[in-house]
Amino acid sequence: MSKTIFILNGPNLNLLGKRQPEIYGADTLADVETRCRALAESLGFAVEFFQSNHEGVIIDTIHRAREEAAAIVINPGAFTHTSVAILDALNAYDGLVFECHISNVHKREPFRHHSFVSARADGVMAGFGTEGYELCVRRACSLLSKA
Amino acid sequence: MSKTIFILNGPNLNLLGKRQPEIYGADTLADVETRCRALAESLGFAVEFFQSNHEGVIIDTIHRAREEAAAIVINPGAFTHTSVAILDALNAYDGLVFECHISNVHKREPFRHHSFVSARADGVMAGFGTEGYELCVRRACSLLSKA
Amino acid sequence: MSKTIFILNGPNLNLLGKRQPEIYGADTLADVETRCRALAESLGFAVEFFQSNHEGVIIDTIHRAREEAAAIVINPGAFTHTSVAILDALNAYDGLVFECHISNVHKREPFRHHSFVSARADGVMAGFGTEGYELCVRRACSLLSKA
Amino acid sequence: MSKTIFILNGPNLNLLGKRQPEIYGADTLADVETRCRALAESLGFAVEFFQSNHEGVIIDTIHRAREEAAAIVINPGAFTHTSVAILDALNAYDGLVFECHISNVHKREPFRHHSFVSARADGVMAGFGTEGYELCVRRACSLLSKA
Amino acid sequence: MSKTIFILNGPNLNLLGKRQPEIYGADTLADVETRCRALAESLGFAVEFFQSNHEGVIIDTIHRAREEAAAIVINPGAFTHTSVAILDALNAYDGLVFECHISNVHKREPFRHHSFVSARADGVMAGFGTEGYELCVRRACSLLSKA
Amino acid sequence: MSKTIFILNGPNLNLLGKRQPEIYGADTLADVETRCRALAESLGFAVEFFQSNHEGVIIDTIHRAREEAAAIVINPGAFTHTSVAILDALNAYDGLVFECHISNVHKREPFRHHSFVSARADGVMAGFGTEGYELCVRRACSLLSKA
Amino acid sequence: MSKTIFILNGPNLNLLGKRQPEIYGADTLADVETRCRALAESLGFAVEFFQSNHEGVIIDTIHRAREEAAAIVINPGAFTHTSVAILDALNAYDGLVFECHISNVHKREPFRHHSFVSARADGVMAGFGTEGYELCVRRACSLLSKA
Amino acid sequence: MSKTIFILNGPNLNLLGKRQPEIYGADTLADVETRCRALAESLGFAVEFFQSNHEGVIIDTIHRAREEAAAIVINPGAFTHTSVAILDALNAYDGLVFECHISNVHKREPFRHHSFVSARADGVMAGFGTEGYELCVRRACSLLSKA
Amino acid sequence: MSKTIFILNGPNLNLLGKRQPEIYGADTLADVETRCRALAESLGFAVEFFQSNHEGVIIDTIHRAREEAAAIVINPGAFTHTSVAILDALNAYDGLVFECHISNVHKREPFRHHSFVSARADGVMAGFGTEGYELCVRRACSLLSKA
Amino acid sequence: MSKTIFILNGPNLNLLGKRQPEIYGADTLADVETRCRALAESLGFAVEFFQSNHEGVIIDTIHRAREEAAAIVINPGAFTHTSVAILDALNAYDGLVFECHISNVHKREPFRHHSFVSARADGVMAGFGTEGYELCVRRACSLLSKA
Amino acid sequence: MSKTIFILNGPNLNLLGKRQPEIYGADTLADVETRCRALAESLGFAVEFFQSNHEGVIIDTIHRAREEAAAIVINPGAFTHTSVAILDALNAYDGLVFECHISNVHKREPFRHHSFVSARADGVMAGFGTEGYELCVRRACSLLSKA
Amino acid sequence: MSKTIFILNGPNLNLLGKRQPEIYGADTLADVETRCRALAESLGFAVEFFQSNHEGVIIDTIHRAREEAAAIVINPGAFTHTSVAILDALNAYDGLVFECHISNVHKREPFRHHSFVSARADGVMAGFGTEGYELCVRRACSLLSKA
Repeated sequence: MSKTIFILNGPNLNLLGKRQPEIYGADTLADVETRCRALAESLGFAVEFFQSNHEGVIIDTIHRAREEAAAIVINPGAFTHTSVAILDALNAYDGLVFECHISNVHKREPFRHHSFVSARADGVMAGFGTEGYELCVRRACSLLSKA
Repeated sequence: MSKTIFILNGPNLNLLGKRQPEIYGADTLADVETRCRALAESLGFAVEFFQSNHEGVIIDTIHRAREEAAAIVINPGAFTHTSVAILDALNAYDGLVFECHISNVHKREPFRHHSFVSARADGVMAGFGTEGYELCVRRACSLLSKA
Repeated sequence: MSKTIFILNGPNLNLLGKRQPEIYGADTLADVETRCRALAESLGFAVEFFQSNHEGVIIDTIHRAREEAAAIVINPGAFTHTSVAILDALNAYDGLVFECHISNVHKREPFRHHSFVSARADGVMAGFGTEGYELCVRRACSLLSKA
Repeated sequence: MSKTIFILNGPNLNLLGKRQPEIYGADTLADVETRCRALAESLGFAVEFFQSNHEGVIIDTIHRAREEAAAIVINPGAFTHTSVAILDALNAYDGLVFECHISNVHKREPFRHHSFVSARADGVMAGFGTEGYELCVRRACSLLSKA
Repeated sequence: MSKTIFILNGPNLNLLGKRQPEIYGADTLADVETRCRALAESLGFAVEFFQSNHEGVIIDTIHRAREEAAAIVINPGAFTHTSVAILDALNAYDGLVFECHISNVHKREPFRHHSFVSARADGVMAGFGTEGYELCVRRACSLLSKA
Repeated sequence: MSKTIFILNGPNLNLLGKRQPEIYGADTLADVETRCRALAESLGFAVEFFQSNHEGVIIDTIHRAREEAAAIVINPGAFTHTSVAILDALNAYDGLVFECHISNVHKREPFRHHSFVSARADGVMAGFGTEGYELCVRRACSLLSKA
Repeated sequence: MSKTIFILNGPNLNLLGKRQPEIYGADTLADVETRCRALAESLGFAVEFFQSNHEGVIIDTIHRAREEAAAIVINPGAFTHTSVAILDALNAYDGLVFECHISNVHKREPFRHHSFVSARADGVMAGFGTEGYELCVRRACSLLSKA
Repeated sequence: MSKTIFILNGPNLNLLGKRQPEIYGADTLADVETRCRALAESLGFAVEFFQSNHEGVIIDTIHRAREEAAAIVINPGAFTHTSVAILDALNAYDGLVFECHISNVHKREPFRHHSFVSARADGVMAGFGTEGYELCVRRACSLLSKA
Repeated sequence: MSKTIFILNGPNLNLLGKRQPEIYGADTLADVETRCRALAESLGFAVEFFQSNHEGVIIDTIHRAREEAAAIVINPGAFTHTSVAILDALNAYDGLVFECHISNVHKREPFRHHSFVSARADGVMAGFGTEGYELCVRRACSLLSKA
Repeated sequence: MSKTIFILNGPNLNLLGKRQPEIYGADTLADVETRCRALAESLGFAVEFFQSNHEGVIIDTIHRAREEAAAIVINPGAFTHTSVAILDALNAYDGLVFECHISNVHKREPFRHHSFVSARADGVMAGFGTEGYELCVRRACSLLSKA
Repeated sequence: MSKTIFILNGPNLNLLGKRQPEIYGADTLADVETRCRALAESLGFAVEFFQSNHEGVIIDTIHRAREEAAAIVINPGAFTHTSVAILDALNAYDGLVFECHISNVHKREPFRHHSFVSARADGVMAGFGTEGYELCVRRACSLLSKA
Repeated sequence: MSKTIFILNGPNLNLLGKRQPEIYGADTLADVETRCRALAESLGFAVEFFQSNHEGVIIDTIHRAREEAAAIVINPGAFTHTSVAILDALNAYDGLVFECHISNVHKREPFRHHSFVSARADGVMAGFGTEGYELCVRRACSLLSKA
């Protein structure tokens, strides 16, 4: 079984740490990647880290995960609420899926309360800041180590 | 008038035959293409076959059809339920449009029951398996031969 | 296994070819029956053809199909949108079921967008004109020949 | 042009004058028929009067009106709220259509506030008691005399 | 008991015969008044006729009817759909109330399908053209003559 | 007062014991009739038992019950959810009405959760299998014996 | 600071004590005015009392309150549920606002359950009869005396 | 297997026979207990009878039933419509569950039409008065005797 | 007749004056009790004052009021929006009921806009601060003195 | 063709510049009128400027525009969301109609997101401040100059 | 600042490990407590662990946390979806709040998709099994250590 | 501060002037660009003009605007109604945003009535034809000149 975890980030997350810090905090995506990689390696796993503003690129990457990744941690950003196509790509993936939102989306606009991805995710997390990525990685490693 | 039919496939259909065969069957998209081409040619028409996970690429292809195709058979996949942009592209197309879903979407989740594309399509078909593509081609040829 | 296909038509379809030709075309139901019978026989099957304006008669006929038909092609007309009883009759039927609408109901009034029958049908088709009946017969024969 | 007006009554109206007089009054359907016939004849028209508890029979009668009647006055009773099939039958009829309810349905349960038939009717009337039939006949004669 | 019937007309009805004749016909409000007066007088009743674009004036007039009128025939125009205040004024009136719409409002925009006034009216009529006023007057006289 | 109880069964219940036994059990309607008759007779009452797939026939039978039956036990089948006409027929009936569903409709599709008949029924029961009919008969006899 | 309280009454309240006493009681508006004036004066404040059936007049009066009144007690009558314009006028007013309904509107028709004015009011009261006006005056005086 | 049936009663049922007899009848809960116990014993079963106004106590009792009862007859009173926690407690119970309402809740306010408990109940009954408890006991004994 | 008024307070009101003073003010529940008692005694009545975070305790207390109190002033706190059981307890109570909210709930989250209790209350008040309790006591005494 | 543009302002706009400047800015309606007149005259057109808090007056003015104005620029204020009568008056007007809101209504309360007037307007503008009036005048002149 | 974390568990969680292990897993609440305590202590914090089936007890405990706990981890069980009172108690609490669900509630019945508690929680987690408690403890310690 | 305005166009706008001229007019996007550039330059500003059928490209361009543009004029085409991702990109942009639709979207299908972008836009315009772009540029220059 693969020892790799894919961490996927959707649109606008390239701006992490640069936009609306009162919502998303000051860490950049590079900071998150560094911390997740360190954590995963300490637990015996590898991480591949992606970001795209293009829905099609995210779908392509999920397809690639079918062969290359034992788990996906995904922050779909705004696609959470609008993309059935990403849900379908995840439905075609057999590994673990964790959905991670930096802010507590339930406190924001009503259209952010529904997630298409949650219908497929094994676990869903919102409002744990960028530390949420590490908690998801920790859960993935925990389950993969038992499997 | 053009003698060509465009057959367009939306996101995740590149996995046809590889994912969820209990829903989508065992045929690959290449199998479908082969059968559609044979059928169309036997009826005096040509087929061009496309698949993309990128909504923008599908829109570009529909624009191209304005000059090159007498009919479009489209399986928009998940974009069926979310893409007004594809609807608008089809609204700017003057030829025949047939919407084709492999599975009977009406038996699946409620969000799969609404199609933006149906508002433009001449005919809509769901649940005829991959044979549905051929039935759409057959209808297109039948109407184009009369026109 | 039976080699017979029942083709059922709901209310007002006796007027086919006589009312609203801009929606339903100029073919009469007799024309459709002739073409479907010819097609089915060419593929090794028989057809029985029915029309009724009475919901109870349609239910009785579906019950009869339990013994006599390997597949049902049904155009429930207006009962599509209102008859749970026809859905239940079809739920008590084990063969193939194809739902066929002459016009693209998705372009018409909102109350025509929901079909009770679709929850049971194997395939659903709308907007293929009266040729749709033949496409359904073709699909039924195709599946029955493989079974 | 035909000089005949069809007056159609839906389910349970055979009990008129016998059930719930606080809602429907004490006149029987025979009383209504007598008064309508007298009025129509005084204005140079004939009346045919029908009642059925069977939706299919009402549809059949509307089909017959295509050849035999210049106007339909219809009290669809409970079918008002549930029958798309009667709407479709009326859509296939070219003459005048008046929808007549004895009680003011807008004061009753919410499911009695919507009428499928109103989408086709030329005029709709509720709460004029059994005199409403005569007012509809009067209107029909008035328009037919001008036509 | 008063022998007078108030006929009230809401906003924009002063333009009757001048605007959108395909919806409202060519008769002016003066024509309607003349015909209603003649009919009422032939039946032994008088008519007072009003029109206002001001909701408050209509309410004031309904208040006046409490002393002066045995029945109200009202075409509330657009206030039909928005004025709880007119409903309340009618709720404070003890005589007969007939609601009359020239066009069949059920065929028009959905916001025209609901009437606040219908919850109080004895009878409701739509789509009988300007003749509808006369039919309402006829019904009022018929009931008042019996009372 | 009549000593007869009408037991009415709606569409598809003629198939009881033959279709979907995982939902409806293995008893046939004839078995139910035998048991209900025995129970009623032991309690001093008679039973008349009916089934029809035709809504109009059920309405006609309810009308007949106005003269002949002291109570109605009705399993309206699919008409439960769609027939205002049966509700109106029951509204015109003065005796006891018990509504009986073999399966627990509340566990099934949402459109089976609403019953028009419940607005008139004295008691409503679902999920007691075919024994439910006997429990309804028992209740009817209990009340009629006291009356 | 002004020592004056405006008490505003919307449509039909001129009929207070004369219409539907089972809902509104037997006191007239003049009675209410007398009692409120006495109470306010005993607490060191003055009252100005208004009623209009014209929305525009009520808006004009609220505008006048911007200069002349320290608090508004308003019973908007039917305008409660329909007038955004009165809400906007109150939004442009800086003093205290108390909304007062004589009957408990929450027990009446659903369209009476929503109030546009409540979004601006400091306090809202329903079902305290005409004594509610005095309770509102009392509250206004209590807060103004502290301010 | 246990031979005991738990009969649970929710809030306000301690007032049975003392409040709103036009809805709930004149029997007290003690009367019901006596009759149910006699019936169960005649059929070879025992009964334990409970009532509480505290949701937590009802949950605790359902937990106890996991060890001590072969069936639960529950009238959850107002908790029917609001308590997911009682549903979850019943979901954790393996025996038979019958839901019993004294009045026909479907004739009352709309918020009484939905029951969380029905999603778990084997049978649901409403409007059979306090005799409904006995009918549920009868059904429970019938099934347990066969098991 | 009893001369006692029960004042009931629901969950979290024990924190009054300690939590969110910008919404609820600085008075404690003890302050409110003192002021209400003084006011009631000055008007010839007694007060009993309760608070509980337990719905069952509130129901028990309402039941006790059936014997001991001529009126109930209740601030149900969060149970306002969720407790049908408290509504039912109040429905079984024959005295006066006044519902009192300290803040204007109509300015807060939408789920705070609906009250189950209002369907039973004689009067409802929101946004009058803790003075609202006194206004309710005043109204209760006023009505009881007249009774 | 008339060279005059009517600029109509609904309720509360007489307070422009005096109320809620954080929403509506500091310009008064007189400032707007001056700037619009100058702009229109520079482009060869005249302006008539109106404001009223009375819906009826606005309707009367629109009626007058039928003879006197080639275009209407209207800021209906709160009537935007509630007045079908103004919509109907505009429907009876043949010239150009531009709907202008000073603030971006889409960022405000949900009930401000729907406009009855937009169904008739040629163009709709919100959030351009008082400069929006000038942009509408500019557009009107541009189209009228070409016509 | 307190170094204690309260971990609160709502109704039915006392059955953890004993009911529906396919949803909730095999760990008991005692197992969870042991693991959370060990983790918290390793990070320099203490844990207090609670479970109750009584909403009132949970509210009381949250009130106690105002003095005694720096963070609350809460699995409200079924109260998640129904308890405004718990939300209000948490609104009166100033520390950190993490909402933890063992199963992915978004894959279950629709009524489990909405949480009142999420409107107050800092972070929300579902589907991480009982390990989710530890992840919440980890996050709480992480933030408290920085504070 | 930058003197550049970005003008962004969404999917299918490359067909402007070529598709559905009855909706969108005869001008091409190049015509619009020319006119906007001329206008902006005359006012002291520069314009950059973009069109893409790819949502990701539009997001990338908005990100670029964070450094390069003082204002964005955007016609998101069909993405208006479906793209939360574009809204989020604009939320991360600090300059002025104007949303511009060529046709009056409020007269078209209901799904075109809602815009995600409007929640962020400073101004929103629909139905001003291609001249709308110039009006937006004019507004942007007006505000930027004052800033």
